[in-house]
Formats: sequence, structure tokens, C-alpha cells
Amino acid sequence: MPLNNMELTDDFQVGKKMYDWAKDLFPVGRSITGQGVRDTLNYIKNKLPELKLHGIPTGEKVFDWEIPQEWVIRDAYVIDPQGNKILDYKKHNLHLMGYSEPVNCEMDLEELQQHLFSIESMPHAIPYVTSYYKSRWGFCIPHAEREKLVPGTYKVLIDSNFVNGSLDYGEVVIPGESKEEIYLSTYICHPSMANNELSGPVVTLALLQWIKSLPKRRYTYRAVFIPETIGAVAYLAKRGKELKQYMKAGFILTCVGDNLAYSFMPSRKGNTYADKIARFVYKDLGLPVKEYSFLQRGSDERQYCSPAYDLPVVSLMRSKYATFKEYHTSCDNLDFISPDGLYGGFAINRACLECIENNYLYEVTIPCEPKMDKRGLRSSIGGPRVIEPSMANMMNFLMYADGDSDLIDIAETIGVSFLEAKQLANLLEKHNLIRKI
Amino acid sequence: MPLNNMELTDDFQVGKKMYDWAKDLFPVGRSITGQGVRDTLNYIKNKLPELKLHGIPTGEKVFDWEIPQEWVIRDAYVIDPQGNKILDYKKHNLHLMGYSEPVNCEMDLEELQQHLFSIESMPHAIPYVTSYYKSRWGFCIPHAEREKLVPGTYKVLIDSNFVNGSLDYGEVVIPGESKEEIYLSTYICHPSMANNELSGPVVTLALLQWIKSLPKRRYTYRAVFIPETIGAVAYLAKRGKELKQYMKAGFILTCVGDNLAYSFMPSRKGNTYADKIARFVYKDLGLPVKEYSFLQRGSDERQYCSPAYDLPVVSLMRSKYATFKEYHTSCDNLDFISPDGLYGGFAINRACLECIENNYLYEVTIPCEPKMDKRGLRSSIGGPRVIEPSMANMMNFLMYADGDSDLIDIAETIGVSFLEAKQLANLLEKHNLIRKI
Amino acid sequence: MPLNNMELTDDFQVGKKMYDWAKDLFPVGRSITGQGVRDTLNYIKNKLPELKLHGIPTGEKVFDWEIPQEWVIRDAYVIDPQGNKILDYKKHNLHLMGYSEPVNCEMDLEELQQHLFSIESMPHAIPYVTSYYKSRWGFCIPHAEREKLVPGTYKVLIDSNFVNGSLDYGEVVIPGESKEEIYLSTYICHPSMANNELSGPVVTLALLQWIKSLPKRRYTYRAVFIPETIGAVAYLAKRGKELKQYMKAGFILTCVGDNLAYSFMPSRKGNTYADKIARFVYKDLGLPVKEYSFLQRGSDERQYCSPAYDLPVVSLMRSKYATFKEYHTSCDNLDFISPDGLYGGFAINRACLECIENNYLYEVTIPCEPKMDKRGLRSSIGGPRVIEPSMANMMNFLMYADGDSDLIDIAETIGVSFLEAKQLANLLEKHNLIRKI
Repeated sequence: MPLNNMELTDDFQVGKKMYDWAKDLFPVGRSITGQGVRDTLNYIKNKLPELKLHGIPTGEKVFDWEIPQEWVIRDAYVIDPQGNKILDYKKHNLHLMGYSEPVNCEMDLEELQQHLFSIESMPHAIPYVTSYYKSRWGFCIPHAEREKLVPGTYKVLIDSNFVNGSLDYGEVVIPGESKEEIYLSTYICHPSMANNELSGPVVTLALLQWIKSLPKRRYTYRAVFIPETIGAVAYLAKRGKELKQYMKAGFILTCVGDNLAYSFMPSRKGNTYADKIARFVYKDLGLPVKEYSFLQRGSDERQYCSPAYDLPVVSLMRSKYATFKEYHTSCDNLDFISPDGLYGGFAINRACLECIENNYLYEVTIPCEPKMDKRGLRSSIGGPRVIEPSMANMMNFLMYADGDSDLIDIAETIGVSFLEAKQLANLLEKHNLIRKI
Repeated sequence: MPLNNMELTDDFQVGKKMYDWAKDLFPVGRSITGQGVRDTLNYIKNKLPELKLHGIPTGEKVFDWEIPQEWVIRDAYVIDPQGNKILDYKKHNLHLMGYSEPVNCEMDLEELQQHLFSIESMPHAIPYVTSYYKSRWGFCIPHAEREKLVPGTYKVLIDSNFVNGSLDYGEVVIPGESKEEIYLSTYICHPSMANNELSGPVVTLALLQWIKSLPKRRYTYRAVFIPETIGAVAYLAKRGKELKQYMKAGFILTCVGDNLAYSFMPSRKGNTYADKIARFVYKDLGLPVKEYSFLQRGSDERQYCSPAYDLPVVSLMRSKYATFKEYHTSCDNLDFISPDGLYGGFAINRACLECIENNYLYEVTIPCEPKMDKRGLRSSIGGPRVIEPSMANMMNFLMYADGDSDLIDIAETIGVSFLEAKQLANLLEKHNLIRKI
Repeated sequence: MPLNNMELTDDFQVGKKMYDWAKDLFPVGRSITGQGVRDTLNYIKNKLPELKLHGIPTGEKVFDWEIPQEWVIRDAYVIDPQGNKILDYKKHNLHLMGYSEPVNCEMDLEELQQHLFSIESMPHAIPYVTSYYKSRWGFCIPHAEREKLVPGTYKVLIDSNFVNGSLDYGEVVIPGESKEEIYLSTYICHPSMANNELSGPVVTLALLQWIKSLPKRRYTYRAVFIPETIGAVAYLAKRGKELKQYMKAGFILTCVGDNLAYSFMPSRKGNTYADKIARFVYKDLGLPVKEYSFLQRGSDERQYCSPAYDLPVVSLMRSKYATFKEYHTSCDNLDFISPDGLYGGFAINRACLECIENNYLYEVTIPCEPKMDKRGLRSSIGGPRVIEPSMANMMNFLMYADGDSDLIDIAETIGVSFLEAKQLANLLEKHNLIRKI
């Protein structure tokens, strides 16, 4: 991680800190609205007091969508013919289909089966199922247990109801020298899942603490913690115009916690500033990365990159959603992510931010080559030309500091790492041989 | 032929109909001017009453060229030393060099040989030779027969003369909603040859009948039946300014009757709208096609694409002129073309027209993704993400309906056929989720 | 060498003439300033009376640099413990480090060793070493001789001093029809070396004599004979604004005398008019050429192409500086270059100039294809299409004379050599079928 400017011991602590947050937040019964979302936002606000909490009331129209009622869930379970309590929501919140309507009745197994969801190929996993926008009820069950259910009378209880309330989200703006913004977006709407839920908020939180700690910021940073899809639609309805006006680059933080892969989802256009930064950072760090097609998108780029906004938003992930078998099941748990995995997700996204902060256009201040030796920057003997690499790099940097090339362009053209390019830029700027534009 | 909207039985009938027309027109003694041209145009007008016949008088200047006199040919033959009538024009009009001046005299074999044309490598073929712009006479003979000619006195008769008349051509304009035009051009100046003559007019005629039959037309269609080269020069002199102003895409119909290959001649620029359409259609239909270099051009693109006009004109052929051995000989006869071959030429060009008619730019009507389930377009259960392909295609279409992408662009980006793209467009437009621009 | 318009015997004479000049100039003790430079410039002026000699006084600021004092060197040698005179400047001027300060003293071998330069891997070569901008002294010695030096007392004499004087250079402007300029730059600052010094001035001189001999010139030619680096900086400080305003293409003449390779150094941008010309000429002549990266630059493109000027300047070399082992040693002598080698360097650069002089944009004068036969340019018989290549080339030329394509573009598109393209252009222009823009 050459772009890393923390001590190694700090890195471990960052990884561990994020993992501990994920552990705290894991049991919370989140959905797209309701108390679970508010509990999650309050936990984050506790670590990041600048976070502002907003709510959009039930029934408000956001483009083609409408803010739904809040789902209140108090208890849910099934009593089997032997009198055993099974599928207990209080034991695992994935047992209950999200947004299930209230039920209190008895039925035989055949009828119950109509309301059960399981995955035959993963017999021990509880699948994650929701029905946000149509009244239904259901339970999710490991397939192995489903096969053991016996005929008889089952008692089903779902103690839920729907109330007018709000769609809650958190937003923070950390000002920088420029009004241009770097945007971070993550979601807080899945119940007990780790990679495809909690990795996003905890890495985003760690990034924001790091951004706050910077002595100065070139760009303004805006971050949101929103429910996926409806939250992104709603936020665009509220702030889309500003995002379009100020966004320099945006990053969706999702699936950044496992340790199996690095995955990249480009923007719709595929060649925005955010795409340039991301592709350069992967190459600069020497990370093997799988770049996906935008046709394989699945998170809030579906809203941010839709034609009416078409924002420069990308995702730098570990294992991409919908590509690992644990996805959207109870197996996406705290064992699937790790401090190391979270740290990798944190580091690659932080590298992008560091790159953006430093990626100035440069231009030379002096026509022709400067006289380097009078500044102590060059040997004054000319002989069988053996220019030391650093000397060649300095002269090459000056040659491409043409006012049209940014630090990434120069690094790529002259064949040095971003860190080396930045050190060259600092040295040459100190000697007044180049200036930022 | 996925773009085909006719019944299979209709297709056979179209092929047969075109072949029958070719049979009717085969014996006519066409040249660049004269009665053969007029007979051919009248035959076509009989099937397409909208066709307007025009004549440009002998002597009129058309750019660098001048309309020649008409060549009137009544009879031509040679009497050999044994008194046999050979090389009889009335038996095969290719025996006589086109535009031969009148002759009535005797000569020995040695002198006659100066006026004979044959092809050694095709001993049984009569070559096709003309001398439009210089006074000459000549006979064309199968090489095998030429070798049997014996010394002695030959009587030569060519009962021809030249008269002031006109260069005749046919033109039809079928109006559409837009003044922008799709242009079809074919030629009617070769005598008894099938692929490199009659395939063009009969396929063009069938296309025009099909165009007329459409319930509505987005574009205006303009078609011409002209003598090759001088006819295209003359037509550009008359109507070149309009063509330049209104032409959206143009197609030269030539060599569209055999069943051996599909061949593509791009425009001079190589990347016009007509080129885009043609290359997409070949790919969409999965047809193997040989794309030629514009350096291998040979028909009226020589005029349409010349720098002063530089029109978006291409040719979608079966076997390209000058690439098959039968070309410009008596072997390019009714056995070389077929109903199937003609149908292939018809279908590929019609596919282009269908593609053009449907190739709108689309833009979404709603910011962000629309709520598909409330329109019955999506399952309302979210679970282990298994989006059916048609759902994914719908969302992908919406994502690329950005106002800059036409139906071809969208189909290529999201990886569906043109027919599928059109069905998606129709469905989404019906639900007011996209609109044409 | 198809672009060559001299007789073969002339070519040999050009090669021999240049080699003889190099022989004359070889012994002169050049440096970046001083009498050696003036002697060299006067020799050239003798062959090219139009050459204007200029001097910039010691102490004048040129951008980041300052014109140094002149180095006056009268004698230099070492007397070894046996009383032998070694490292005698009068025997080989490379023995003395350039710009050595005066010395007259005795020292033991250990101290002397601090001032000796040799190359272990080339035991018989005297290296070329200078210290222009820092006061030092030193001697350069074949490594084999250095190893034979015995302990004892050495007497060291360097009879040099530094005086206020000037930096001298030569400049010639040969006017043409246009104020746009073709620029030639070569350097005259190395002592007795052949490829990496004298090949440049002698080939430039021969090119200028050839340019003068042309009956007319489309472009103005400007050439300079300058010391490398400081001379180019100084010349840009004086004339950079004019160069930027008028330069169409520029060529640095360096390392153009050996017979081992052809090497190309592109401009910084890599796609200027000079790059286009050079790459085309290599291809047109069928010469195998090694194209170097601009990162491997090393001559005055370091100044001409620096961002503030960014001029279209390239080098067409034989073996590139710093790539052959003889470079910057006494082995880069008159045996390393040859009349043939110099002629190759001359011919490839002259081919570029001939190409530039003839590389007009062309446009047709007549809409559609012209009637070629009435101008005697085409057979009037149309038959089995066998267009002779020259006929096809003529029609192809007309097809691409679109006002946007220059002669190089047309030659590349229609697949003919530059010479053929020029002959076609001349013929078509003579018949008023095309005109230059």
C-alpha cells in the first residue's frame, strides 16, 4: 500500500476499530425505514458528531417513488406441531421476510410452505428476502431444516404493523478549500449481514474520521448513509442539483470487508474523473482487480449514474455483491469479513482520495530546461552520459509539466509511481521550477 | 433473417416475383441510351405507376460529360467463308460491341481479327464490350469458336446509326413524415446480363413496392433507375444539391441476385450513417460478409461519393462485381441468379431500411430508475438477486436511453438484437418511461 | 532512395564532400565557447557565405542560464616520474577535461588519480569529460595507460585561463515563398569527435547548399550552428518567439554519420507535422528504423520541445547518441563515420524536406469523375474490367483529393509511393483536374 501514510500499527488498529463497529451494529434489525435505521445512524453519529440526521415523511413523492410507511416489528415466530418455537425473529432477524404484514393464526404445513423461502444449494443458510412494496408475509429457513418439517398444525405469529413515519438518513459535509466535492455514499438498510451491509458504513466512517484528521483539504467532502435504492432516489430528489454542480468524483462504499478480491464497478460513462483515479490507483498499487461491466451494476450507481444525473460515481469493492455465494444470506456474517479485509477496502478508497487531493495540474515556471546544478540538483560534470534515475525523473517531470497534464498523467508518462511523482513535484515546487495550476 | 416481417411463403413469392421480372427483361437490348432503356423503364413503370420517366437531350453538358447520341441497332452479323451467318446480334446481343458504328463490307480473317474480342480462359463465354465514346466497331465471340475461324473472305454487316435523342431514366419519390431522404440507385444499361444488371432493378422494384405498402414512413424515399456512370453524373448535375441536402443514407443496388456471398462496399468516408446501419445489420443478422475497400469500388459510388458530393452511399451486394468469373460475360445469365439469391439481396437491403425507420434516439422521461413494479413490470420480491433477463434488459435500456444513443447504440451496448431492442423500446414507450427524440 | 533526385555519381560526391569537411574540422579544439567554435563557424561560412555569425557576451542572462566566460587553452600535459610528457593536449585534445582551470604544480600519483578519468571497459579509449559550470581540472586517459602509471612525482601543467568574451553561433535564413519556416539545428561544441559532433554540421551544410540550389522554395529555411544546450537556450531566448510563430517543422542534425542504423527521436508531443513527415518518409523509403521514446531524448529537443515552446522538432539520426559504445570517447573518430554513412544521414533528412516542399493539400476541380478519355488519359473501351494500375491510381487520387487530405494522406490511402503520388498530382494538375489549396 504505497499510498498509505499511516504507521503499520495504525493500520491494524484501523482494521480492528472498523471490525468492532461492525460487531456492534450486526444484531440491529435494519430495514429501509424504522427504528433499526435510526439506531444505526445514532451509533455512527456517536463516532462522528458532525453527522446530520434527516427524515423524509411517509407519503412524500420522490420522482417516480413514494416514501413508504415505517415497518414496526416486535416479534415473530412459528410454533411447530410439537410445540417448539422455530424461525424466531429474536434469534435471527433474517428468519422474517422484511416488511412482513401481521399474522396470528394456525395453518397446516402445506399452507405454511407457501410462505417459506430457502436455498436448496446452501442447506444451512437463511436467505435474505424482503417485500417492501407489496403486502405479504414470509419466513426464511435453512433448507436442511425445511426438509425436517413434519405435517401438522403450525401456529404463526408476526407482531408487526405499519405506521406513518419517515425515511431516515445521515449526511455530513466536511468543508475544503474548494466548493468542488468528493462524494461518499453507503447504505444502512440490511439487517444482520456483514459484507453486503456493515462493511460499507464502517469503512465510510473510518474514511470520514481520516478526512477530518487531515491538516487541510483541497476538496469538500460530502457523505451519506442512506437506505439503498429508495434512499438514493430520495437524496437525488433533494440534492441532485447540487451533486451535479459540485461533484468531482464519487464513491459508493459497498462490499468492502472480505479479503478475497478487489473488484471495480466503473461509472456509466466509464471514463469520468472517478474512473481515471480508480484505474490509476489499482495500477499504481499493483493490485490485481476485476473490472466489471456497468451492465453488472447493482447498487446505487443505478440512481447516481442514471441518464438524468450521469454522475462520476464508481465503486472500489472487495468481492462484488451477487458474485459470492454468501451474498444475501446468513452466511454473509462476521466471519466473512475481517479487520484485514476491511482495511483493504479502507486503504484502496483512501488511496483514491489521497490521489485526488494531490492530483494537480503542473506547469513549468521557466522556459527551456532550468540550470539544475546551481540549485544543487545536478552533478556539474558532463561525461559519458550516466544520468542517475532521479535526475532523469526530475528532467522528465519538468518536460511534461505542460499545464495540461495532471500528476497522474505525468506519473504514467514518465513511468514513476504516484508517490515518486508527488515527491518530485514537491521538490521541484520547493525550488520554484513548477507551479500548480 | 430476424428483421424479416413477411411470412415465409411471402418471401418465396417475393423471390420468385423478382426472378420472373428478370426473365422478362433479360432479352432486352439495353445500352446507356436508346429503345432498350425505354422498354426497360416502361416495364418497371407498369409495376410501379408512380415512376416518372425523364430524358436529357443529346448534347447537353453534365459537368465534365456530354449526353451522347442514341445508338440505333437494327441488325448485325458476320457471314463466314462457308456462307454461315455467325455472331448474329439477333441471337445474342452480347455478340456486338456496344455502340458499334455501321459497317457493310468484306474483309479477310486477318483484318476481322482486329475487331474480335474473346476470353481465352473462358472459351465458351461471350465477353461484354462497349465503346461508348469513340467510334469503333467490333464483335464478341467465345474463344473456342474464334479458334475455329478459317482464312477467307468474311462479310460484315452492322446496320446501326446514331441519332439525336435522349438519355432516359426513371425516378420515384415516395413521401414520408420527414423531408430527409433514403436514396436507392440502380442501373439499367447492360444488355442480357443477370447479376450485374437485372438483379439491381428487380430488387429495387420489389423494395419500392414494399416501401409503398408500409402503413407509414418516417423518411422520404427517392429511387432512380439510371444508366451507370453517365446516368449518375447526369442525375447529380440535375439533383445533386437536393441529394446533398436531404440524404440520410443511400444504397446502390447492384449484384444482388446470386446466392454465393454477401459483400459490402462502404462509402468513401467509411463511417457515415449508411455505413453504420449496414455494418450493424450484417452483425445483427449474423451474416458472414466480405467488406471491400473503397479502393475496389466500381459502380455509381464513384460519382455519389466523389469529393464534391461525398454522400453517405453504400452497396450491400451478394457477389461483388468484378470478383466472379461470369462478370461481364454471357455466363452472367439467368442461371447465375436465383429466386433465393435475389431474396437474400432484397432482405439484407430491406433490413437496412427497417433498421433506419426504427432507429430513433431515446431518452428517459423520469430521473433515476422508475418504480417498475407499480406498472406490473417487475417482481416486488427482493431476494437472492435473480433478475430475469428481460427485466435486466429493460433496466439496461433505461440506463442507456440518454438522448445521445440511438436504438443501434443501445442494442450494441446492452447486448440484445435489434428486434429485442425494438420490443423493449415499444414496451417502455407504451409505459411513458422513454420518449423518442 | 526513391526521393533522391540527384544522380548516383552526385550522391557519392556529396558523401565524399561531407567526409572531407569532417576531416578538416576534426582536429579543431572546440568547446561551448572560444576560438575553436569561431574557427569552425568560419570554415562553414567559407562554404556558405550567407551564414551570419553572432556572439552573445559573457555574463548575459538567457532564461535560467548565464553566458559563461570563454575558456582559453594554450597547452596542457603531465610529466611522469621518468620525465616523459604524457596526456599531451596538443596530441589529442580529449586528454584535457573541457574548461579545466589553470594548474602548474607537482603532486604524487595518489593525488593525480583524483583528477584522472578513464573507462575500464574500453581500455584504449580516451573519455570525453567537461566541467563547464564548476571550476575543476582533470585529464582523460585510456584505462590501459592509467594502470601503467607508477608511483612518484608528477608535474602537471594546464596553461589555460578564462576571459570575458562571447558565446558564438552561426545562423542562416534562406527565404522561400512562404514565411513559414523549416528549421535545422546542429551543434559545434565538441572537440575531436566525429559522429556525435561533426556529422551534424557537415550534413547540415550539405543540406543548406542543396536548399540554396533549388529553383524555388515553398518554405523559408532557417538553420543554426550552435553549442549544444546553452546555445539552444540562448537562441530560444533571442528568437524563440519567431520560431514558435513560423516553424512548420524542425530537424536536429546529430549523429548522422555512421552506417550502422537509422534512428528516430520524435517530438515531445509525438504527433506534430514533423513527426508525420518523418514517419512517412521512413515508411516510404522502406528503411528499417528504431523509433525511440522521447524519454530517451538527449540533444537540443530538450530545449526546443520544452513546454514553454513545445516546437515540432524531431531528429532523424543514424546511430543515436548514447547508444553506441564509441559515444563520447576518442573512438568516435573519422573511422566511425564514412561518406556512405553521412550520405544516408543527408538523404533521409533531405527526403523529409522534399516531402514537405511537395506536401500540398489538393482538391478536385470538377464534380463527379472527370471524363478521362477526352483528355487522352483513359482507354475508351469498356470490357472485362482490367483497369491498368496507373489508371486506377489516377481515379483513386481524384477520389481522395477532397481538400482535407495532403499528398502524404493520399499516398497512404491509395497505396502508392510519395514519388508516384507526386507524379499523379503533377499529371492531374496539368490537366486542371485538381488544384493545390
